[in-house]
This record gives sequence, structure tokens and C-alpha cells, in this order.
Amino acid sequence: MSELLAALATELPADSLVVDPDIVEPYRYDRAMTVRPGRPVAVVRAGSTAEVQAVLRIATRFGAPVVTRGAGTGLSGGSAAVDGCITVSTERMRSLTIDPAGMTATVQPGLLNAEVKAAAREHGLWYPPDPSSFEICSIGGNLATNAGGLCCVKYGVTTDYVLGMEVVLADGRAVRLGGRTVKDVAGYDLKRLFVGSEGTLGVITEATLRLRPLPPPPTTVVATFAKVVDAARAVAAVMAQIRPAALELMDRAAVAAVEQVKPMGLDPSIGVLLLGQSDTGMAEAEVIAAACRDAGATYVALTGDPVEGEMFMAARRMAIPCVERLGTVLIEDVGVPIPRIPDLMAAVEAIALRRDTAIPVIGHAGDGNFHPLVTFDRADPDATARAGVAFDEVMDAALALGGTITGEHGIGTLKVHRLGVQLGDDVLDLTRRVKHALDPLGILNPGKWA
Amino acid sequence: MSELLAALATELPADSLVVDPDIVEPYRYDRAMTVRPGRPVAVVRAGSTAEVQAVLRIATRFGAPVVTRGAGTGLSGGSAAVDGCITVSTERMRSLTIDPAGMTATVQPGLLNAEVKAAAREHGLWYPPDPSSFEICSIGGNLATNAGGLCCVKYGVTTDYVLGMEVVLADGRAVRLGGRTVKDVAGYDLKRLFVGSEGTLGVITEATLRLRPLPPPPTTVVATFAKVVDAARAVAAVMAQIRPAALELMDRAAVAAVEQVKPMGLDPSIGVLLLGQSDTGMAEAEVIAAACRDAGATYVALTGDPVEGEMFMAARRMAIPCVERLGTVLIEDVGVPIPRIPDLMAAVEAIALRRDTAIPVIGHAGDGNFHPLVTFDRADPDATARAGVAFDEVMDAALALGGTITGEHGIGTLKVHRLGVQLGDDVLDLTRRVKHALDPLGILNPGKWA
Repeated sequence: MSELLAALATELPADSLVVDPDIVEPYRYDRAMTVRPGRPVAVVRAGSTAEVQAVLRIATRFGAPVVTRGAGTGLSGGSAAVDGCITVSTERMRSLTIDPAGMTATVQPGLLNAEVKAAAREHGLWYPPDPSSFEICSIGGNLATNAGGLCCVKYGVTTDYVLGMEVVLADGRAVRLGGRTVKDVAGYDLKRLFVGSEGTLGVITEATLRLRPLPPPPTTVVATFAKVVDAARAVAAVMAQIRPAALELMDRAAVAAVEQVKPMGLDPSIGVLLLGQSDTGMAEAEVIAAACRDAGATYVALTGDPVEGEMFMAARRMAIPCVERLGTVLIEDVGVPIPRIPDLMAAVEAIALRRDTAIPVIGHAGDGNFHPLVTFDRADPDATARAGVAFDEVMDAALALGGTITGEHGIGTLKVHRLGVQLGDDVLDLTRRVKHALDPLGILNPGKWA
Repeated sequence: MSELLAALATELPADSLVVDPDIVEPYRYDRAMTVRPGRPVAVVRAGSTAEVQAVLRIATRFGAPVVTRGAGTGLSGGSAAVDGCITVSTERMRSLTIDPAGMTATVQPGLLNAEVKAAAREHGLWYPPDPSSFEICSIGGNLATNAGGLCCVKYGVTTDYVLGMEVVLADGRAVRLGGRTVKDVAGYDLKRLFVGSEGTLGVITEATLRLRPLPPPPTTVVATFAKVVDAARAVAAVMAQIRPAALELMDRAAVAAVEQVKPMGLDPSIGVLLLGQSDTGMAEAEVIAAACRDAGATYVALTGDPVEGEMFMAARRMAIPCVERLGTVLIEDVGVPIPRIPDLMAAVEAIALRRDTAIPVIGHAGDGNFHPLVTFDRADPDATARAGVAFDEVMDAALALGGTITGEHGIGTLKVHRLGVQLGDDVLDLTRRVKHALDPLGILNPGKWA
């Protein structure tokens, strides 16, 4: 046994430390299936903040890399193992306290997003952020990636719900950032520096999240368009008037994929499907419907029945799993300003054609955040190579349109080679300076970012 | 002429550099009138990012302190001059571009908040953040302090509207942070690190701000309560159900002060005045009114007339200027979780009594963010000393209730002696490490924070 392992074994309870290669194996991966992860020396299924602190103290002593993971549902390889690392899994840290009067949830990172939502709901409260994977992703992973979702267009992303956090630093100290008040400008906004930092600055061991009153059930608008440009015009018209509770887009290939895997009566000859929701009632839903009609929709329907509405939204949420049944998928996550949506969609179509690669597109249209799903046969080396090129070209197209390479999934391993392109040398230098200030030995998720 | 001044004179246009003591004098102060500022060696009324860069390069070369200021309306002394500093005024940097389709405003820091709002409105768009001083405060100052306002309870604070920024670093490099997309997780959230950093990390020279569709005119609810605890119960009941467009509180002394200086027919015997607004129509306004009635309001009225509603909100906005006519004011800005509002109000009342000092209270009740106005006669040394003690005791009361010493005004000079108490040693250490990483010579607004 190495000295590092011996130190871990001394400091941690036996059931927290895992070295059996068969058990370690699944902890090497997240859901970025094209990434080739390294091999951890151990997985620590931490049971408490104190155990995380012990791991970080030992890692600092030995200069050992530390990779933190939640439920392993990340799409960019952010929690993929690094050779020789200690992988800290937060899956067992699952305490949860709702303060109904203060309208907050204080959570440990191992809880699933859906569990936080469910606990809030028991008090008539709501935790909005809703990544499509909300039933299986952890709140810790949501915090580490600043996860988004469908409701962001009206209700914002994970960082907008964080009032306070406990973070274990590289040297093993646990610090409390922020607090329990909605407005707080005492000192730097350090909690928002840690949110979305993908385990490169510290390990988030607790968070106090802001809750909202439960909204009324939504009214859902379903519209189809022959052409992307028409759907994009509808999106712009909606956003110029209201903030819908959701505004989602699926292109023809995405609809066809869902219909192929989970038949639900969608017409696969649809050009583009747009799904809008309002939770303030019929008047806003009518605004969405009118915007679709004015933009030349071929079909518009409106339902106040939440079950029927949820069925359509479920089709949207199932798109990634359905496309994953058709091949290996490199999941893009680019964002552009709303006026550039048609240009992005045209660019993706051209790339798909040029690289002879299927790229169904789904997206949070109201935010200009799209997931082109670069789909290929992994057994075919040429197709795999073409998909890799297409993946990079989609990022480059977004950057050329004044956009971002990642709206909500993170940089992880998959996009690290384009981070500097987006940020530029000076901001990359700032990034490294901040990283070095908080993790001088560079042990936290090394190689993932700067 | 010193070498420092000679360097500035060489690099800057003549009309940008001010050394005449009479003209420099007002640039020493912001609106924290109890602060004794230092004396700048020069004021630079920068006309461009390039001029700001030149100043920072020279400051780095000479190790000279740099204090940045917008319109000088800060309430915490954040832009108060430091002896020997170069004061950079952004008042002349006033370019503004609205992108109606992208729903953004790209602004230089010298524009007033009201000017940004007005320009957006010409396109049917809205820039929400609305400090009470919105007609006279600069957008640069809003960014530097992460300013709040009345609409925050529904629409969030300044940082929630920043998509991208240009910042000049301590060494004179200009960097672009963020971009034009609503969702963007590529790299650390550095722009939000700079927002609210009160000139201690760099000089914000441009920002791209997110705009929203103009909301419909508000419906306003006015309610009075005999007791604070009843008003607080109404606030909690409102927030448990909806997000009002505003939810403001004035105590008896604040109402009396407004009525004394700007008579508008308010009954000075009112215990507490609560002002609520909805911009989604009558149904939400009825929720507010019902919550007030159920909590034992002595009077509840509801008006759909925006002019009448604005009159009430104006009374609230005028509270600080009105109280300032009655004496010198140390303006508090504490925040507490909503369930602790009655405790905070009781603590303030006890402090006022104990220190024999008038402390009218106004506040953004829906956010738990309050401005106890510690009012005293500056000519009376004993009263001045008592006011100073009361000011500290209000901060301590907020901290004891799990709150913050500043919700939206900033630390500045006035509160720097309590920053460490709120943050604790470890977070103060983190703060210093981040500060040192970005400003290794410590030239940016020294002495204000860490």
C-alpha cells in the first residue's frame, strides 16, 4: 500500500474508502462517453465535511490530484478521473433542511436535484433549476457546473439560487461563503466564483438555496414550423414581449429520433417543433401562440391541461436519451445571442452535411442555448474522426456568432481545448491567477481547465 | 511637478487631467458625509478606456493608489479619496448602444442609471435595477457596488443584468469578461467577481447589460399597521405566495420625516407603512392586499392608477433626502432573513432608545434589506459619538440575526471595520488572496477592503 493510501486509510472510516478496482471502475466516468478517463488510486465516498477536509489535507501533503463527483451525470467529462487521483464522491452526503419561513433549503451535495424539489414542494415551495437530468443528477454537480435547464429563460440558473455555501479549500480548510440573506454585498462574490468552477477551486460540501413559491400549473403552446428561420422569428417575438416559463426547440431530426425510440405520435415530417409555456395563465400563452402564428407556424395548439403539457415537455427532455440510442453522442452546449439563432442552426446544418454526420438539434431557444447532438458510430474510426471535427466546428461557429462554447454543461474534458479560444490570453491569465491563488499546488481537478 | 504628475501630463490629454485644488475638492467625497477623505494628487476625468489604461500603467509604475468614482452618489465612502491617490472619474465616458434584437445595452460607466433606462425604453425595453438615486447615480457606480433598489425583490440586482464587461486591470491591461449570451459557463464567473468589488480589483470601462421587455404599469397596494410585527407578518405572507414588483416599508419616524419635509398628506401617526406593487395585474395585488388585511392592517388601499402608485413610491424614494434635511445621517444597509425582520426592527428601536439617537427605518422589506437612518446633529460631539456607536450596534444586531452588514450599498470606508467580523478570518484570507492575485501591488482603492 502506498503512503498516500495508508494516510487515507488512517484518517477515514473503512466504509468511506474504496480501492477495489471493480468498484472504482464506474467512478472513473461521467456521461461524456467519448472521454478516456484516468485511474484513481482511491475513491472516497465521503460521509461528512470532516472527511472531505481529511482527504484535502492528505492530498495537499502528497500533492495528489483530487477529482470531485456528484452523481456522475455530467456531459462534459468534468468529473472524469485523472491518473493517480483521489476521486471524492459526495453521493453519501445527503442531509437536507427546509426552512419554510426563510424559504431556503440547506443541502449537502449528494442529494438529487429532484429530491430537493420534492422536499421544497412539501412546503408549497419550489427549487426552480431543472436540468433535463433533474431526476438523476446531484445538486452538488448542479452547483459545480452552474447547471441550467428549461425554466432558466424565466427563472435563471443554479447560481441565481445560491445564498450561501460551505466549501472545503485545497488545503483542507472549510469556509462559509455568503449567508441566508437575499441581498448581500459584503466582500467579493466568492460563492459565485465557486459555482460553475467544476471542482477546480474547492469541494462544495453544503449550500443554502433560495426557494420560491410554487408557480401555478403551466399553459403549454405547441407550434410547428416549416423552416428554422420562422421558428427563430417566433422566439425573438416572444422574448421581446414576455419571459415565458419555458421556450424549447427541437429540429426535425430530434423529433424523428424521439418518435423512433419512444413513439408518441409526433409527426416526423415536422420542420421545427417549438414548445412554449407560461405559468401566469392564458394571456401570456396567447402571446406565445400569436407570435408563432405571425411568424408563419404551420400548426399551433394551446393546452391548459398540465398533464398534456408535461407530455410535450417530456418529449423534449427525452431527446438526449433517445438520440443516444441511435449512436454515440457528443453533446454540444453552445449559446448565441437570440438574433443569431438562424445563423447557428444554418451553420450546424452545413457542418452535418460537410462532415456526413447526423446532428439533431434541441435547445433552450429562449436563452439562445442549443444542444446540437453530434451522433456517430463509435465502431467506425472515420465516422468518429468526422464527429470530432464537427464537434469543434460547432463550437467555432458559435464563437464566430458572438456566442459561447458552453451555456450550462461546462468545460470539463471535452471542451478544454477551446476554452482559451473563447476567453483569450489575458482572461486565461486571470483565470490561472485566480486558480493559483486558491489552489497553489494545482491539485484540484488538474488538466480540466487552466 | 512630481514625476507622477509629469507622467500623467505626458500620457493624457490636457482636458482629462485636473490638479486645481478647487476643482479637485468635490471629487474627494461621495455621499457618505461623515467620512474624512484623503487628498488626491490629481483627478483624471478619463475620456476613454485607453486613458484609463494609461493611468493604471502609470500608477503601477509609481505604486500610486487609484480610486475610481462614477457620479459620487455612493453611501458608504467607497469612492472617497485616499491621500496621494489618482482619482479616476468615469463621468465623461458616456457612450451607449442599444441592441434591440439582442435586448442588450452596451454602456460606458459614466452614464446615469436613468439614462440607460430611458434609452432602453425608446425600444420598448427595460433596464430594471433601480436604486433610489437612479436619476443621479452612474451605471459604473451601480456595477462597482452591485447596486440594488426597489424592483430587486422580483427582478434581481445589478449583477443579474451583466452579460459582459470590459475591465482595466491594475497593470493597465484591458480585458473582456463574459459576452452577449444569457447563459455562459465557459470559465470562472469573473465578471461577477468584479461586480460589487468597489474598485478594488480593476476599473470597469464598459458593460453589456441584459434588458427585458417593459412590464405593464403596476398596481399599487398601500397598507398601514399599528405594529411592526403585523407588517412583518404581511411581508412573510406575501413572499410565501408571490414575487411582488416591489414591497417597501417605512416606519413611523420615516413617514413623519417625509411628511415634515415634503408634505403629501401621509398620516404621521401611522405605525408602519407598507407599499406593495404588482405588474401582473389585479390578482396579485389582491394577494398583497389580503395578506395585509389578514396580518391586521389598520388601513389597506389598492390603486391601478400608475400615477397615484408612483406618488406613494416617490414618498419612499424621498425618505433618505428628507431625513438628511433633519440632520447628518449614517445610512445603514443591513439585511436579515425575512422571518427575522421583527427582531431587527425591535433591535433598532432599542438601540435608538439606548443611544438617544433618532433612527427612522425604511427598507426593501421583501428582500429583508433595511436602511435604518442613524440621524444626529454633527455639531454635537456627544450625539456624533452616540450615533457612531448606534451605527455599529445596528450592524452587530443584523449579524446576530444571521444577516449581513450591507445588502446593496457596499463596504466602502464606513463599514470596513466590520467586514472581517461578518466574513471571518478564513474568508478574509480568501478575499486577500483573490485581491493579491489581481492587484499584486495593492494600488486599487487601498484601505477600503482587505
